[in-house]
This record gives sequence, C-alpha cells and structure tokens, in this order.
Amino acid sequence: MAKKNKPQRIKARLPKGFRDIGAEEIAATRAMLEAIRGVYESYGFAPLETPFIEYADALGKFLPDDDRPNEGVFSFQDEDEQWLSLRYDLTAPLARHVAQHYDHLPKPFRSLRAGWVFRNEKPGPGRFRQFMQCDADTVGSASPLADAEVCMMATDALERLGIARGDYVLRVNNRKILDGVLEGIGQADATARLTILRAIDKLDRLGADAVRALLGEGRLDESGDFTRGAGLDADQIGHVMAFVEAGLQGGSRADILARLARLVGGSETGKAGIAELEEMAAFLDAVGYGDDRIAFDPAVVRGLDYYTGPVFEAELTFEIDGEDGNRVRFGSVGGGGRYDDLVARFTGQSVPATGFSVGVSRLYAALRHLGKLAAARQAAPVVVLVMDRQHVAGYWRMVEELRAAGIMAEMYVGTSGLKAQMKYADRRGAPLAVIEGEQEREQGIVQIKDLVEGRRKAAAIASRQEWVESRPAQVAVPRGELVGKVREMLAAQAAEGGS
Amino acid sequence: MAKKNKPQRIKARLPKGFRDIGAEEIAATRAMLEAIRGVYESYGFAPLETPFIEYADALGKFLPDDDRPNEGVFSFQDEDEQWLSLRYDLTAPLARHVAQHYDHLPKPFRSLRAGWVFRNEKPGPGRFRQFMQCDADTVGSASPLADAEVCMMATDALERLGIARGDYVLRVNNRKILDGVLEGIGQADATARLTILRAIDKLDRLGADAVRALLGEGRLDESGDFTRGAGLDADQIGHVMAFVEAGLQGGSRADILARLARLVGGSETGKAGIAELEEMAAFLDAVGYGDDRIAFDPAVVRGLDYYTGPVFEAELTFEIDGEDGNRVRFGSVGGGGRYDDLVARFTGQSVPATGFSVGVSRLYAALRHLGKLAAARQAAPVVVLVMDRQHVAGYWRMVEELRAAGIMAEMYVGTSGLKAQMKYADRRGAPLAVIEGEQEREQGIVQIKDLVEGRRKAAAIASRQEWVESRPAQVAVPRGELVGKVREMLAAQAAEGGS
Repeated sequence: MAKKNKPQRIKARLPKGFRDIGAEEIAATRAMLEAIRGVYESYGFAPLETPFIEYADALGKFLPDDDRPNEGVFSFQDEDEQWLSLRYDLTAPLARHVAQHYDHLPKPFRSLRAGWVFRNEKPGPGRFRQFMQCDADTVGSASPLADAEVCMMATDALERLGIARGDYVLRVNNRKILDGVLEGIGQADATARLTILRAIDKLDRLGADAVRALLGEGRLDESGDFTRGAGLDADQIGHVMAFVEAGLQGGSRADILARLARLVGGSETGKAGIAELEEMAAFLDAVGYGDDRIAFDPAVVRGLDYYTGPVFEAELTFEIDGEDGNRVRFGSVGGGGRYDDLVARFTGQSVPATGFSVGVSRLYAALRHLGKLAAARQAAPVVVLVMDRQHVAGYWRMVEELRAAGIMAEMYVGTSGLKAQMKYADRRGAPLAVIEGEQEREQGIVQIKDLVEGRRKAAAIASRQEWVESRPAQVAVPRGELVGKVREMLAAQAAEGGS
Repeated sequence: MAKKNKPQRIKARLPKGFRDIGAEEIAATRAMLEAIRGVYESYGFAPLETPFIEYADALGKFLPDDDRPNEGVFSFQDEDEQWLSLRYDLTAPLARHVAQHYDHLPKPFRSLRAGWVFRNEKPGPGRFRQFMQCDADTVGSASPLADAEVCMMATDALERLGIARGDYVLRVNNRKILDGVLEGIGQADATARLTILRAIDKLDRLGADAVRALLGEGRLDESGDFTRGAGLDADQIGHVMAFVEAGLQGGSRADILARLARLVGGSETGKAGIAELEEMAAFLDAVGYGDDRIAFDPAVVRGLDYYTGPVFEAELTFEIDGEDGNRVRFGSVGGGGRYDDLVARFTGQSVPATGFSVGVSRLYAALRHLGKLAAARQAAPVVVLVMDRQHVAGYWRMVEELRAAGIMAEMYVGTSGLKAQMKYADRRGAPLAVIEGEQEREQGIVQIKDLVEGRRKAAAIASRQEWVESRPAQVAVPRGELVGKVREMLAAQAAEGGS
C-alpha cells in the first residue's frame, strides 16, 4: 500500500476467519451452554477455566494439518523469548492442569470446560479461526465405564438441547483395534500409522476411493495438489478397508464387535481394544442406551494425534442443503476419546483420561436449522421518545417504571428530532414507542404506538393513501396506566408471534 | 536449560500473569455477569461479541504504558505478514465494528460486551495479563444524557450485585476541563498534555508530591528509576494542582463545578467541558441520582489516550488490608468515558461515543471480600460407590434417579476399592455417599453416609477411640426411598450451613 501524506485512515475490517456475533446468537449460545452445563454438572463434572495463552510446548502439536506453518496454532514469543500459543482445544490445557496439580486433585478428576479456541487454519465458508467448544473429561480412570459415561452424557446433552433421538448418533471406535489391524499387516510404525489414520479420517468427506488412494501411492485432488499416501500394497489396503467398512453392513454393537474381532486376529493390542468396547457395550446395554444413540463404527478414527483408545464422534444425521445444492448430512458436532499419554508428556507417567468435546458453534448452526434455538425474552426495548428536552426527567421516570416491571425499556438519548427518533425505534425493532408531547402532558396521557402492528400494516398496505388513513396502531392511555398498557400490548404481540 | 538425551519431559506450568480458575469463581462470575447483563439489557443495550484477534492497526495503541515493547499488546504476524493483536479492551473493537457497519446500525447504537481482554504487561500480585471486562456503550449521541445514563446504569449494576450505597462512588470529570486549564497555562501541546494527564492519573497511587514532581522535572522512584516529568514551572504546577485538588474540599456537584469554572477562565474548551457536566448534573439531580452515588472529581483523568470528554471511574470506598498491612480503600472496579474520535480513525468523521467498562475480575475480588458472592446450588455431587462391578447398572440407576430429581450425582467410575472411593468422595467435598454392598442388596436397602456430618465429627472428636465409637453419621433406608432420603439429608445440611 502506498502511504499518503494525509493522516492515514485505517480500514475497518476483520482478519479472515474472524467475525462479530450479534445478540441473537449470543443469547442462543448462552442458553445452549447452560443446558449442556446443566447436564454435565448433574453428572458431577465441575467447571474449570484455563487461560487462553499457554507455553507452546505445554500445548504440544497434535493438530491434523501438520503440513501448514505453525501447525494450525497461533504462536508468538513472550518478552523472555519463550514461545506462547493460543489454545487450539480444551484438552491439551487440561492435561497441563492435571500434571501441574496432580497430587492435590481427586482421582478421577471430572471437569467441564467451555470457551473459545483458535486454529491458525485456512478459513473458508462457515469455517472460522475462532470457535467455541464445551468439553467434559474424566482423568484418572482407565475404566471403559468412564468412556461410556462421557458418551452417554453427550447424548443426554444433545437431547436436552432439543435434538430428537434418531436425529443424532454418537459413533464409537477404538484406536487399539486399528493398531491391531495394522500390526496384522506389518505396519506398526508410528508415522505410517498417523498417515493411515488421517487417510481413514477423510472417508466421510472424500469417499472410499480417495481413502484407498491415500492408503496407497497418494492422491491428486481437484485443485491439482498431490497428497502423498501411506504406501500400502493392495493386500494391505484391502485389509484396512475391510476394517473401515466393517460397520457399513449394520447390525448391533455386538455384531460389529464380532466382525472386528475376526479382523484383528491375534494382535494383543487389537484384542484389548475389542475388550474395552465389549465392556462399554455391556454397560450401555444394561442401562438402556441403545445403538440408536451410541453405535460402534470402525470408520471413526478422529484426526487428532493424541488418542490412545476409544474415540467418539457425534453426528447429526438429518439432511441439509450442501454447498453444491445436493442434500447432505449435517455431520459432526463433536467428538473425543481416550488420551492416556497426554499427561505423561509432563509427568513421565501414563494417566488414563477420556473426554468429549462439543463443537458449540457447529451445534448452534444445527439448532438454528432445526428451529430449536432459545429466543431472548424481549428482543428489543420499548423506546420512550424525547419530545421536549425540558422534560427528560419525566421521560426517564417512564423507563424506570417499565424496567421496574421487568420490561426492557430505553429513553432516546440521541440529539435528533421526532422523525429520526421514530426511525431509530423502528430500526432497533422496538415493539412499542411511547410518546408524550406538550398536549399529552397537559391532558395527563401518553400515546403508545404499536410498531409491530405498524410494520405489519405498512407491509400489507398497497397505497400511500391507504397507509395515511389506517395509521399504525396507536392508543392513548392515562399516564398512570402506562406500565399496565405496555405489558398488555407486549403480551398481545407475543401471542400473535409478532414480538 | 541443558537438553537431555532422554525423551524431553515438559514442565507443566503457566506463563506468568495467567491462571486457572476453579468452579467457585466461575459460578460466581457467571452470576455476576448475569446480574450486570440483566441491568444493561433492561436499559436496552444489546449483546455484541467481537473476536479476540483483530488487525493491530484497527485496535490502535492507546494504553498508558507506552514505554514497554509492544505497548502492552500481545501481537503476532499472520501468514500474509500483517500484524494481528489480541484485544486489550472492548472499546477499540467496538469502534472498528461501528465504523465497519456504520450505515446499517441504528443511531444511537447501544451495545453491551463481556469477555476476556489481554495486556502484555508486567504481571504482579493480583495483576493478571488476562482479565475480564463487561462494557456498555452508546455510540452516536453527543448528548451528556448518554454519559449520565451509562454512569447511572453502572451504579445500578453495582447495587444489583449487592454493593450497598455508600460503599461505592462513581467519580466523573471531563477531559475538556483539564484541556481548558492547560490552555490557560499555555500548554496545549498534545504530547505534553498526555504526560500531564498520566502524572495526574497517578495521584491515587503515588500521592500529591509525586504528581507535582511528575508535572515538573520528573521523579526518582523507590527502585531508582527516573521518570521524566512534563517540565512545567512552579506556577503552572500550582495551577494544575489547584484543578486536581478542587474536589478535595468536597461539596455538591454544583459547588465543585463552580470552583472548576473559575479555574478554566476564558478557555472555550474548558467552558464546554463545564457545560457538559452541568447538563449531566441537572439530569442526575432531576432523576434522583445523588452525589453519594455519582460525584464530580477533577482528580479522575483515566490513563487511556482516547477519551475526549467526560471520564468516569467507579471506586469501592470500603477499606481492606493493603499489601503493606495498612488499611487501604478497595479502589477502582471500572471506568470509562467519552471517546468521540475513535471511530474517526476509520471513517475520518467524528462519531460521538461514550461507555463504561466494569473490571469483572476486580469486582469478583470485591464481592468475595464482602461475602456477597452467589454460591453454586450444590457444590459437589452425591457419590454412589461401586461395591460390586457386576452391579454397575444398578448403581447407575441410582444416579439416574437422583439426577432426575435435580440432585447432582455421580457413580464412581475409577477402578479402585472401597477405601479409595471413600477418600475420593471426601476429597471432592461430596455431601453424601451412597453404599450398596451384597448384604444391602439382599435386604433391599442402601446406606447413606453423611460426609459433612462425618467431617464435622472428625474435627470435633479428640481421640481415635471416641471416633470409632461415634462413627460418621450413616443411615440405612429401603432402596425405594433413596431419592427422598437424599433430598431430606441435603436439605438438613443446607439448613445447618454445612453443605
């Protein structure tokens, strides 16, 4: 950019992938978080907040897109030259917290955390670099019951939010089973394992053929970029795909486990994975969480590097219009899994841990689509117009009385005249405007304009003539009846769904 | 640090100035924000959230400590080399938002924002680099009524939080009056003005002598650092100090304004400042917000560079133990003012704006000191112990029943035995533990241990012998009466203040 000699004017804009959030989404998100928190707290998970900034080494680098600079994390140097990072999830900071306070925590340590996380990723439509998660984790229990519990709790939360049974499914797999399959085909190397895992993780988005390519030599995508594959041969690919697709034929949790048991063969790791899922299944069966809610699906692997056992993914199964116009499943709104080695990065000792993370921003979009968002009680204030600046104290009394009655209300505090004030009230979406001019004051009355009714009439009326004749609904009441009349008119608007 | 050849173990620690926040503070802060938001929304201020990350130039540099690198702001470069910053307050992002959407916003535009902000400052005791603010602003009105309103609303919020009238005061000054005084002594230069302003801002912390020194040649502080002064001569210093101290003699808002009017002499800017405060005072008088709530005090200047008119500071006036053991006033919990030029950085056109920012973290400390924090309904879950892993489904039914009755409850999901489970329940601060062993199951009963009573007895009991004889309170009830009995015991604990 060329510099000007004049005082430089700065462009008002946001970096890509960031956005401002308005009143409606804020209120709905708050209600959502309260519902989720209500469920999680009832299970005995206690709130915890970690800071947004941590030492980069404490958070580690576990994000899927390791081919990008910074590996997806916003990082910068502190004054003492140590690298700091913005948190990219709520799991890595929990591991740091547990390691730091291990001796003083009750074990298992059950916490719930909600807040913004940041990814230095390429933004896209609906893909932001700041988004909200709500996590619950049980640290210090190796029992599959702990895994089962966070899954059950997550489905309870989805239902509490108004997502009907049948409109979601929480899919469960176990990384150990995949490890067993890879052992069976002679692929125990960690790097190859990660490449294979990330190939499988793309099944939903890219389909089986692409995954096959990524398991083999690699894949040329539509933009012409080539992604190197895991280098498996045809037999090996067949074996991995048999595993991945073992869920496609359907069946109960037990049916799928039986199929998987055959695929892991003699691998001890694989058998341990099967045993864990069996224990989860037995518990889920016994307490009545059917496979319509929590299903087993070997295609779920999760992209994050730190999972060591069961992995979970919550999917909304109803269809929406996709970007290309075709109907697509809404897709993932959260996930998680067991990460027994994350605390060990600090302590050197493995600490069993499992958790589930809800993608709050994604879930907001889903609830919005379903029409299940909690509405704010009153979307906009009653506006008391200032007809005569000499009498602001009198107008102020009106808003005070309205507020004391629990009605959102404001006195116009700008400096413009009546016409601009009416335009203001309209632009704010105010339900009512209150007017007291000199004449009204002398008569001891106030005028209350029904702006919702006015907007409706204005929309329905064909000619200006007709508009002038009908005039927006307006009533005059004695000053002493202001609050009662306003309450009555707001109730009428609410009953008509007009507020 | 020397590198080891063994896999490097990472130290679990947080950068200085950052901290983890526990359940109690989270619940109390949430309740505080709900109370403040309730007041602000009732006034017609609508929630808005801006992102944590903005372009550095859009936020600008207005922080007081401009002698430090980065000027107090955490900044880093994006992939396209543009500088990004973490927001350091909630005002600069609002100005960006308003400039970006100006044509589509109702004017005045009234918003409320709550969230974390970040300062790259030297941390100290109780001084964090991440803290929470809750702001309300009216953008688009030049009327002093808009200034008065945000002040009134802030005092309403303080009282809603339980801070008694008399325990707080919101002090108001006007930058234009100071400008008038400076004009009078021939000091209209912007840089000198800022140095003078920041000297005055230190009155509370350093006292009048230090301010005099900072207005003159400068000051050597206790650590041996020399701060260059504004270079005023004795006469000029006397004039500025007369202004600063014009509030010390007390008196009504009108008395203080009369004194200030004499000090600004013929300066038009100064007179405009007086006139604005007069209009605020007339309105505050008319609607009954006395100077016990909102006082005028010329010593209030605020350190931020962007204020252009009235400035506000809310102070809690009760005393607490200071760091040196002496009693000190609790001090500031928020502030604000008019910033008519902040939007103009983008648009080139002045947009009148005023607002008030509550320091939520500071206010939390104050409410905690006053014992006014909202307590969580139930601090810890009832813990159902797992005596027999064969019967986890039965234990699970118990927690399900308790939760369905609105009682926070959890089944132990760890893998340890009875003793460790009891220790766990105790460490969590659980109010009750539920026990069903084989014997109880056969008899169709459950044991409920009152852990609060148990802890109290344990504390009061002198000898181990006595402890063994008394045993922590424990009752046996039929399985079908579990929920009723738990509810009854929790109510009894709450009545005794033991929960």
